[in-house]
Amino acid sequence: MIQQLSIIGIGLIGGSLALALKQAGAVARVTAYARRQETLDQALALGAIDYGSTDLGEAMAGAEVVVVATPVGAMPAMFEQLAPHLTDDMVLTDVGSTKGSVVRAASMAIGQLPVGFVPGHPIAGTEQNGVGAAFADLYKNRRIILTPLQSSHPDAIATVRQMWEACGAEVVEMGVEHHDEVLAATSHLPHMLAYALVDTLARMDESEEIFEFAAGGFRDFTRIASSNPAMWHDICVANREAMLSVLNRFSEDLAQLTAAIEAGNSDYLLQTFTRAKGARDRFAEKFEDSNT
Amino acid sequence: MIQQLSIIGIGLIGGSLALALKQAGAVARVTAYARRQETLDQALALGAIDYGSTDLGEAMAGAEVVVVATPVGAMPAMFEQLAPHLTDDMVLTDVGSTKGSVVRAASMAIGQLPVGFVPGHPIAGTEQNGVGAAFADLYKNRRIILTPLQSSHPDAIATVRQMWEACGAEVVEMGVEHHDEVLAATSHLPHMLAYALVDTLARMDESEEIFEFAAGGFRDFTRIASSNPAMWHDICVANREAMLSVLNRFSEDLAQLTAAIEAGNSDYLLQTFTRAKGARDRFAEKFEDSNT
Repeated sequence: MIQQLSIIGIGLIGGSLALALKQAGAVARVTAYARRQETLDQALALGAIDYGSTDLGEAMAGAEVVVVATPVGAMPAMFEQLAPHLTDDMVLTDVGSTKGSVVRAASMAIGQLPVGFVPGHPIAGTEQNGVGAAFADLYKNRRIILTPLQSSHPDAIATVRQMWEACGAEVVEMGVEHHDEVLAATSHLPHMLAYALVDTLARMDESEEIFEFAAGGFRDFTRIASSNPAMWHDICVANREAMLSVLNRFSEDLAQLTAAIEAGNSDYLLQTFTRAKGARDRFAEKFEDSNT
Repeated sequence: MIQQLSIIGIGLIGGSLALALKQAGAVARVTAYARRQETLDQALALGAIDYGSTDLGEAMAGAEVVVVATPVGAMPAMFEQLAPHLTDDMVLTDVGSTKGSVVRAASMAIGQLPVGFVPGHPIAGTEQNGVGAAFADLYKNRRIILTPLQSSHPDAIATVRQMWEACGAEVVEMGVEHHDEVLAATSHLPHMLAYALVDTLARMDESEEIFEFAAGGFRDFTRIASSNPAMWHDICVANREAMLSVLNRFSEDLAQLTAAIEAGNSDYLLQTFTRAKGARDRFAEKFEDSNT
C-alpha cells in the first residue's frame, strides 16, 4: 500500500488515479497540488483527495509517490518548481503523452535524474477535462506504458507498476524514443487528421450544409477533434520530431492514393482498401479481446 | 400504399427498405432480383420479400416502384439490363452513394430519361453487407437525399419521397452535382483518410506493436476503414472529380498544419484546433438532436 500519494495538477487523469487507488484500498492518503483552490475543493468533495494545497511544498510533504499530472506543456515549469521539494526516498512519475520531452524537462530542472524517477503514460482518457470528469474505472483494462531510465531504481519501477496494476491496468515497458514513435503513429497522427478534416470542412463555403449531411461514420471519425486544443498544442511541441515523421509518411501515402483515384488505378485502390480493412478488422478483434 | 416494390440487387440497403415498408404497412408486395438464388432465399426467409427471381424481367414485372440497390459500380450494366423491362408507368429510383455517375449510366442505357426516374441516396448504412444484416430501423431519423432531374415527374418525386418517409426517414432534395460535392466532403474524404491511415500504419515495420497501443479514440477513428473495399473502389471511380477536389484541399491544409508543427507556430496550431473543436462540438449537438 502507498502511504501517501501526492498528485501535482489534479484533473481527469490524476483524479481518476486517486479514485481508483482508494477504491482498491491501495493508498492510505492522497494529497494534491493545484493552482486554484476551487479545483482542490472539487477534488475534496469528490473524495478523490484527503488534503489539497495551492502551495507545492505543502502538497508534496511526506509523499511516498509523487505523480506529475499537469498538461505536458506545463511540465518544464512544474519540474523546476518541484525540484527543491523532492527527497531521495520519493518515487516520482508522470502521466505525460510524450516521454522524451518530459525526461528532458526533468533533466533540465533537477540535473542528475533521481533514482526514484520512472516516466509513465496511461493510454486512457476521454474528450472531457477536469477533476469533475474523473472516475475510478478509467484505467480498467487499459495499457500503461512505463519508460524506465538507466537511472531508475528497480524498486521505484516496481512501485509505479504496482500502483497502476492496482487500478486494473496492464503495465508494459518500452524505451522513451520508441514510446514517442508509437504514440505519434497511433494517437498524435489520428488527432491531427481529425482536426485538419473538421477544419477543412468548417472553412468551406457550404460548411453549415456539409455538416447537416454527415452521418454516423463521420461522427465517430471526428470525435477526437473535440479534444482539448491546448493539450494538443503542447503535444505538437513536445513530440515534434516523431509527429513530423509520421505526418510526412502519411502525406506521401495519401498523395499516392489521390494519384490512383485520378488515374482510375483500380488495382491500387482495391489493394489498399483491402489491406487496410484487414488490418482494421484484426485490430478490432484484438481490442475487443483486451478491453471488454 | 405501394402495390408492388421491386428491388434490383437485394442487400443491406434494399433489404432494410423492404423490411421497413412492410413494418409500416406501406407496401403490398415486394419482389427482388439477385444474381444468386441463395441471396433471394435468404431475403424470403427473413420476410423481406414475397417473391424473388434471378431473371430480371420476372422480378420487375408488375412493379409500381423499382429500386436499383446494386453497388454503384454495377449500376451501368444493371441499367442496360433493366431498360427493356421498364414501362412508362413505373417509378424508378436508386440508392447509389454518388448521383452524377448514376444519372450518366441511366442516360447511356435508357436514352431519354423516363419521367418516372428520381435518383436518390439514403445517408445510412453500417460496415456490414448483405441482406442478412438488414433491419427495419436502418432509415429511422436518417436523411434521404433525392436529386430529381428536369425530366422527373412531380408524381414520381412524391411517390419516392413518401416511400422513404414511411421508413421514418427525413427526405431532402438537392441538385446532382451539389450532392456529389457534399458527399465527397462528409463521407468520401473521411473514408479515404481512414483507409490511408490504417494502411500507413499497417505497412510500418512495427505495425503489430503499433496497433497494440492504440486506444479507444483510434478505434472510433478507424471504424470506417472496415467498410467494403469493392464498394469504395466503385465510389472512387464514380465520384472522381469531387473527391479529387476535396482530397487536394485537405492535403494542402494538412501540409500547412505540418509546417506549423515544424515551425513551432503556436498561434496557428491553437487557432486551428480551437476552430475544429468548435465546429465538431456544434455538429455533435445537432447530430444528437436529429438522431436520437
